[in-house]
Amino acid sequence: MDAIDQIRNIVGDAGWVRDGEEAEPYLTDWRAVYKGSAALIVKPQNVDEVAKVVRVCAQAGLPIVPQGGNTGLCAGSIPDGSGRAIVLNLARMNRVRDVDPTNFSITVEAGTLLVNVQAAAEAAGLMFPLSLGAEGSCQIGGNISTNAGGIGVLKYGTMRDLTLGLEVVLPDGSIWDGLRGLRKDNTGYDLKQCFIGAEGTLGIVTAAVLRLVPRPRTRTTVLAAVNTLAQGVALFEQLQSEFPEKLSAFELMSDACIKLALKNVPAAVYPFDEPHSWYLLFDLEQKREGESEAELEALLGARIEAGGIEDVVVAQNLAQSGRLWHLREAIVEGERLEYGSVKHDISLPISAIDSFVGIAAAELEARLPGIRVAVFGHVGDGNLHFNIVRPEGMTKEVFYEAARPLTDYIYELVAQKGGSISAEHGIGRSKIAALARFKSPTEMSMMAMIKRALDPHMIMNPGKIFEDAHDRRQ
Amino acid sequence: MDAIDQIRNIVGDAGWVRDGEEAEPYLTDWRAVYKGSAALIVKPQNVDEVAKVVRVCAQAGLPIVPQGGNTGLCAGSIPDGSGRAIVLNLARMNRVRDVDPTNFSITVEAGTLLVNVQAAAEAAGLMFPLSLGAEGSCQIGGNISTNAGGIGVLKYGTMRDLTLGLEVVLPDGSIWDGLRGLRKDNTGYDLKQCFIGAEGTLGIVTAAVLRLVPRPRTRTTVLAAVNTLAQGVALFEQLQSEFPEKLSAFELMSDACIKLALKNVPAAVYPFDEPHSWYLLFDLEQKREGESEAELEALLGARIEAGGIEDVVVAQNLAQSGRLWHLREAIVEGERLEYGSVKHDISLPISAIDSFVGIAAAELEARLPGIRVAVFGHVGDGNLHFNIVRPEGMTKEVFYEAARPLTDYIYELVAQKGGSISAEHGIGRSKIAALARFKSPTEMSMMAMIKRALDPHMIMNPGKIFEDAHDRRQ
Repeated sequence: MDAIDQIRNIVGDAGWVRDGEEAEPYLTDWRAVYKGSAALIVKPQNVDEVAKVVRVCAQAGLPIVPQGGNTGLCAGSIPDGSGRAIVLNLARMNRVRDVDPTNFSITVEAGTLLVNVQAAAEAAGLMFPLSLGAEGSCQIGGNISTNAGGIGVLKYGTMRDLTLGLEVVLPDGSIWDGLRGLRKDNTGYDLKQCFIGAEGTLGIVTAAVLRLVPRPRTRTTVLAAVNTLAQGVALFEQLQSEFPEKLSAFELMSDACIKLALKNVPAAVYPFDEPHSWYLLFDLEQKREGESEAELEALLGARIEAGGIEDVVVAQNLAQSGRLWHLREAIVEGERLEYGSVKHDISLPISAIDSFVGIAAAELEARLPGIRVAVFGHVGDGNLHFNIVRPEGMTKEVFYEAARPLTDYIYELVAQKGGSISAEHGIGRSKIAALARFKSPTEMSMMAMIKRALDPHMIMNPGKIFEDAHDRRQ
Repeated sequence: MDAIDQIRNIVGDAGWVRDGEEAEPYLTDWRAVYKGSAALIVKPQNVDEVAKVVRVCAQAGLPIVPQGGNTGLCAGSIPDGSGRAIVLNLARMNRVRDVDPTNFSITVEAGTLLVNVQAAAEAAGLMFPLSLGAEGSCQIGGNISTNAGGIGVLKYGTMRDLTLGLEVVLPDGSIWDGLRGLRKDNTGYDLKQCFIGAEGTLGIVTAAVLRLVPRPRTRTTVLAAVNTLAQGVALFEQLQSEFPEKLSAFELMSDACIKLALKNVPAAVYPFDEPHSWYLLFDLEQKREGESEAELEALLGARIEAGGIEDVVVAQNLAQSGRLWHLREAIVEGERLEYGSVKHDISLPISAIDSFVGIAAAELEARLPGIRVAVFGHVGDGNLHFNIVRPEGMTKEVFYEAARPLTDYIYELVAQKGGSISAEHGIGRSKIAALARFKSPTEMSMMAMIKRALDPHMIMNPGKIFEDAHDRRQ
């Protein structure tokens, strides 16, 4: 019996996907840019099945592509076009195994949707604070494997900070039970760190113990308009000092973003009378309605007085808060519907944001007049979505061609400023060349040492993060 | 020229320590239990010297013991008795390289004293929140290499959470410059995680970028006495839900601890009229004096009413707060001066603390009547210092003999309850046997894979975490 038949036997008839239309979503990436093919798409229902499947693959030398909700933006969870790999999809492993409110923790299987982890925490009177656009479709195993970020990182950290323990099937098919719910454990190397953010290249995360936090009672949402980015960063610094525990999100939006949202998303509402250059959207988590109202109004009033803020809206209720956040969310859709944009998910030291954006925007305009620099993101943790959009009247095909050297320029400036060319999206398949270019040889070689140590036969998610050795030989 | 002479040449006359009395402190562990000897004690003054020294060692196969303040409790930073290793002490690399208040970060060399990192942060109007007993003597490189904890972990996390970037000299003498001040960076594996908590077995941390936080304006300190540990855990759960961002420490102390402090430390003051079974000491960080006073008093009042708290003291000023914390600190000294105690630095899921302590205390009393169970620690992060003290009238020699199987019993129960046998002290040399016994073979083998990958010639801190292969061969 060949390896594929053995795997079909392990998972049974409900555990694998037929070729054809049914298979499409497993082989195409979220942005529909990449399409691969697979020797088999397998959907095990428990960790023992995963381990047995991996053991067969290890013996047969079959590459494995672990897959969660397949919502990644770097094509990290689909196979290449060779048809050699199996896709191991975790969707059927979606149970909440345990909620422990006294320990502020929850144990879930990798295939659990992020939105269902949030719901299970809420049912226990607590909160799981990871929050991002794809939360209705992405799975927690994917969030772990990409060290997901989102809007709550400023206060609650990334997925790495929210992960207490892991269960992982290793590349030889053995199971590592590291499902500990501990805040402090210094018994040797912290092995879970190897798998968080490794994009499935070192093993398959099958379950996790996650940190929960007390649920905030209420939120105050504020949208402020400023003339310069420096004023925006200064506002962040002051809010972070005045309300360090309450400030749970601090988002930046450039003029170009807001214009695209208002142009292409009919439901988006602009709350000011005049146009402005930069917008800051932030949340203060509160225990009671109006808790910090007087202090916040004094702070904002003083900044308006001093010319540091042009205009401001403080949401008076949940509906208003929702409308402000909707504007932020409409940016992504507004940009997409303009057809012809290139995304850069970068991070910088917060102190370098202003000078980076100033230099980059001027240079980009000089190189391609009329280019729209749609900057938005999470200033509080230094993460900018620094996207560039075609000048009006230019076709997207012409723009994509013109944009290539602009991306190189942007990444070079990021590197100069001590930043990262992939803040929260990872490397996957689409950023491999950029990684090799901007990562030091020392770092690339350390990564390769760890890869070889844990996955000596190189079967885990080949062609992701690292170039595929098999491809290189051809 | 032999390797030792080459190393002396690299660092110059001021860079190495003569044999004899001057060498003693570098060869003896903090608790004065272990004593080693060295081929040379070397004190490089910059990262290039460190790299050159390591290159010579790598070529000559000389083992290297990295050493910071040498305040560890598991003998992880002194050499064995063979005299083969060199001690590489970082004390001369003690500069604060940069403070960036806008990025809430600081860049320091590994030999900087923890207390000096705290002071540099304070001078910039911010706070570095790591705080522990040895802060006047321990160095930040050691804090990183042992993933230090202390009393602020509940709110601010361990050293791992406070580390943004590292500079490391690798076992082949190459320098990895990972000094990035970023909150989000998903460009491949997060290599700094390998070195945090690795106790110098994978490389030498020479500098770090650390996270700073806004400085709290004031603090309210409370000492509450309760009848049962379950009531203590319930109080934690309620405070954590009511004041999630303010609760910055939540410490537990058993009756036996308080008695030892009062018996042996004349300056310790007992603030209640009656003796009680358990004590909880906690801090609320506040923006203004008296900010949460009414709420806190209502909460405590309701618990007293319901019989959940026996008595309580709320510090009304800094001096009172200092006296309450002094009682907590006097516990360590009180236990030491009783001569004859065995320490266990364990952690548990918070939900398992009550049942663990109940079962363990009863069993220990049954096995050794009169034994004093001195439990104190950081309930908020599940970390207990579960120490046992000789029965009155028993000599320490007899007790140490009797205690050995009791330690085994305690560790077994910890493992049963999903806990850790070393929460914040690490493994070093003194816990190697326990580690091998309680860690799964899968985990031990993964650790060995990483060790072999990054330190193939096994020269970094041999005989720490892992048994020394050289010893095994003999």
